Amino acid sequence: MPVKRVSTMFEQHRETLERALAAIAERGYWSAYPESPSPRVYGEGAAERGKEAFEAHLGKPFALDQPGTGAWIGAERSPYGIDLGVTYPEPVPGDLVAAAQAALPAWRDAGPQARALACVEIVERINRRSFELAGAVQHTTGQAFVMAFQAGGPHAQDRALEAIAYAYAAMTSSAGAARWEKPAKGEPLVMEKRFTVVPRGVALVIGCNTFPTWNAYPGLFASLATGNPVIVKPHPRAVLPLAITVRIAREVLAEAGFDPALVSLAVEEGRGLARTLATHPGVRIVDFTGSTEFGDWLEANARQALVHTEKAGVNTIVVDSTGSWRGMLGNLAFSLSLYSGQMCTAPQNILVPAGGIETDEGHKSFEEVCAGLAGAVGALLGDEARAVELTGAIVNPDVLARVEAAPSYGEVVLESRALKHPAFPDAVVRTPVIVKVAADRPDVYGREHFGPISFVIPTASTEESLDVLRHTTGERGALTAAAYSTSDGVLDRAERVALDAGVNLSCNLTGGVFVNQSAAFSDYHGTGANPAATASLTDPGYVAGRFHVVQSRRPA
Amino acid sequence: MPVKRVSTMFEQHRETLERALAAIAERGYWSAYPESPSPRVYGEGAAERGKEAFEAHLGKPFALDQPGTGAWIGAERSPYGIDLGVTYPEPVPGDLVAAAQAALPAWRDAGPQARALACVEIVERINRRSFELAGAVQHTTGQAFVMAFQAGGPHAQDRALEAIAYAYAAMTSSAGAARWEKPAKGEPLVMEKRFTVVPRGVALVIGCNTFPTWNAYPGLFASLATGNPVIVKPHPRAVLPLAITVRIAREVLAEAGFDPALVSLAVEEGRGLARTLATHPGVRIVDFTGSTEFGDWLEANARQALVHTEKAGVNTIVVDSTGSWRGMLGNLAFSLSLYSGQMCTAPQNILVPAGGIETDEGHKSFEEVCAGLAGAVGALLGDEARAVELTGAIVNPDVLARVEAAPSYGEVVLESRALKHPAFPDAVVRTPVIVKVAADRPDVYGREHFGPISFVIPTASTEESLDVLRHTTGERGALTAAAYSTSDGVLDRAERVALDAGVNLSCNLTGGVFVNQSAAFSDYHGTGANPAATASLTDPGYVAGRFHVVQSRRPA
Repeated sequence: MPVKRVSTMFEQHRETLERALAAIAERGYWSAYPESPSPRVYGEGAAERGKEAFEAHLGKPFALDQPGTGAWIGAERSPYGIDLGVTYPEPVPGDLVAAAQAALPAWRDAGPQARALACVEIVERINRRSFELAGAVQHTTGQAFVMAFQAGGPHAQDRALEAIAYAYAAMTSSAGAARWEKPAKGEPLVMEKRFTVVPRGVALVIGCNTFPTWNAYPGLFASLATGNPVIVKPHPRAVLPLAITVRIAREVLAEAGFDPALVSLAVEEGRGLARTLATHPGVRIVDFTGSTEFGDWLEANARQALVHTEKAGVNTIVVDSTGSWRGMLGNLAFSLSLYSGQMCTAPQNILVPAGGIETDEGHKSFEEVCAGLAGAVGALLGDEARAVELTGAIVNPDVLARVEAAPSYGEVVLESRALKHPAFPDAVVRTPVIVKVAADRPDVYGREHFGPISFVIPTASTEESLDVLRHTTGERGALTAAAYSTSDGVLDRAERVALDAGVNLSCNLTGGVFVNQSAAFSDYHGTGANPAATASLTDPGYVAGRFHVVQSRRPA
Repeated sequence: MPVKRVSTMFEQHRETLERALAAIAERGYWSAYPESPSPRVYGEGAAERGKEAFEAHLGKPFALDQPGTGAWIGAERSPYGIDLGVTYPEPVPGDLVAAAQAALPAWRDAGPQARALACVEIVERINRRSFELAGAVQHTTGQAFVMAFQAGGPHAQDRALEAIAYAYAAMTSSAGAARWEKPAKGEPLVMEKRFTVVPRGVALVIGCNTFPTWNAYPGLFASLATGNPVIVKPHPRAVLPLAITVRIAREVLAEAGFDPALVSLAVEEGRGLARTLATHPGVRIVDFTGSTEFGDWLEANARQALVHTEKAGVNTIVVDSTGSWRGMLGNLAFSLSLYSGQMCTAPQNILVPAGGIETDEGHKSFEEVCAGLAGAVGALLGDEARAVELTGAIVNPDVLARVEAAPSYGEVVLESRALKHPAFPDAVVRTPVIVKVAADRPDVYGREHFGPISFVIPTASTEESLDVLRHTTGERGALTAAAYSTSDGVLDRAERVALDAGVNLSCNLTGGVFVNQSAAFSDYHGTGANPAATASLTDPGYVAGRFHVVQSRRPA
């Protein structure tokens, strides 16, 4: 029986699961998968072997034994200027769903613990492939190598484990069996009851271009751990990281005696497969990361499914004053430059009182704040060879078009520069553009300009800045917000506004913590309380709807 | 500050909350509110005082200090033949929503514990008014008095407390604050983090005609405990029980220093107020119990809200064999007769092999099973004065029409009789009608015939019976299912089918536990896994989407 085999096979992960359960309750610092790519952590030669493994995929068909048309498709091109040349089996959507449905009962019957432990095994094996995955993430997203390793590897794996822990906690919060004994006249009434977690049905995970693993793993593992087979539909430009992930999952599931059809890959070249799958009557859960337009379409049309979306947002920084002028500028410069701002968490709108701000280096006028920011970004990215390791490459032509359009919105504070990548001559690399935009132009700053584009907006006062934060977040959503102030009163008001607007707030970041980074097991990513996302990664609302409890009772 | 006042005022409920939390984890027998209306439990004179309190409402305006048009409306008529003559303030929907929104921040800021304890206080005060509420429930639903007391009083109160406990557990499963200390080169990175539960927004609870309190309380208290203001829109025929409830809630909230607009009543005479409120942009949660037609409409149209619905279902009994012929017949007769089958949990389809069944009294042919059932119902309801205390009255003309239509579907096994109520000459009372319907008539038995209407359906075998259970539940939903068999193999197969179809199953009920009754804290009501309901009363999925977590972080 699979249950016993899994318990035996993956018993060694029990402690990891227990520690993850403690971590999600305490939400202090914890990480299961080291973020350092150092050989001291991952072993001598691990990086080289991972690079070879990644390169071995290039120019070849990526075999997966799952229902397909027989055609091999795929047209991934690295933002660093290399055609990957990997092809994947073209799926038959209905057949994938049918195979997933057939695999469901045995996985359901395995129960919460066996499923959770098998999921941890999948994540552990993914972890061992972190260097291979880093190559795949780097050359599909344009992230620099170290970021591709960290965000695409251990950070994504931590988010996966976090989702497994939330799923396990939700499934086991009530007893799986109980004896019910009700006092009554004469004999008590006694019943034996069983409570079984049943999955909602086949789940679909729709991946994004920029963080194929980090944004897909929570939905993938939350659904799988709660008993749902999962069809993974990667972004056509970022298939390989999820193809490797799916193959690993299928291997683990098959070894444990389950049908590998519990996890399958639905590759397309951009012909609407997501729509077909998301509205298939057999698909009961959809997790999506991407544009507001398609997220809204899914919410309106995938009516047979529970739909979780993470969409666009307008992230805002309120600058009131600071006790560390240089710390603030350096921190913001890093946040604007990291992966060329191609993060759903990167700041866009920087709100500064027109009359300037007080700092530890004296009063700074609005123009000085602009100049300070421009200077900090310029200094950070002054060395071209080092700069590309922070900015990475531009992920797709849409981002490039937005960078080029940005100067038309106002007065340019910092021009975007095209950098030459020393190792990849065809890589498209751009430094951030910063534009001063008037406060009466919410038509410009009130929507997302995804990419290395930010706006410095002069406001009448910090109160007006907080109003702008409230309104843009309420109307367009946001994944992050930040405030800088030496006044506890201002920070408290900023917290009230963030609560009302439903956005996570970072205050006075001047060191090694950045507004666009969230730590699994401690920081929530998104809230569900504003239009940018339907739930946090990860909170109870993210996992609870993925399963139901079915009961049976018999007289004892 | 409200938080402190509430903690002090309602400190005495901490133990009740703790016991409820233990009960939802263990799911054995527990009840906070005694179901016996005996003076030994509720005190000498409690019944008489409650009756007086109920009667004091009749023929008068029911005052509630909330936004209204100035008009007084209401046209409730008791199924026992009495016009209640109570009128209620006609609301202005937008004003109710605005008042609720204005009340939200202070309630949010009070925090999970203060809210949960205040909610328990509301339930405790409702409990003290159980006899008054019993009168209101009896004369709006047609339930007999004892049932109105139990289901409308303590059982509903237990379900309310259960929802509060689930809400509290979900809100407090992760820490409200944490210190995050990440090892780093040189100094560790240290952040102080706060995690605040924020409500989704204004909630709407749409009550039903037959169980105004029992079906409304879980949504009302799940939303309120998670920080959402609640607008209660009763069924036009069953306003009074919820009006009393709303008034009690407003009193408690005002005493605790909160805005009573956190709970308000939206009465109508049936002119579409539910549609107006459910699609109001400010309404973010809708809980509904009632018809599939309107539930489907809400799911399709109240797109701005999280919608939980409990709709129609087709409840099925699979009879394979029994070790207690008389026990089985008596149990089924009771389930068919209780409140004239006007329960969403009452059985409708009784599937019996055409070749008959084995019993402890020998083989019984299909015809003998039919005759046995008819005889058991006849014996149970033989004494007219006692019978009405079981059947109650017919709640509305639609039910009566279905009773009258039933004989046309097949061969009548038991005719419905009109009974004279000894105390209420104008009460409309009907005993169950049982009709033999062919297995090839899913057009008849495959949909709900709400009321004292059941069908005995001859099948080729128990396997066919299980197939019918699977299909009708999958297609039309069900809130309950039951199986009778002396074979463990058959019961195991029935459990598998129930798991696949996502319906709660009761096996071999022959004593004092009935398929149409579910015990709070132990039995789940509905599953969410079939079309009859979106979630259980109560499971994590029922509460988790009602709130989000918003975080703030600052360097320590």
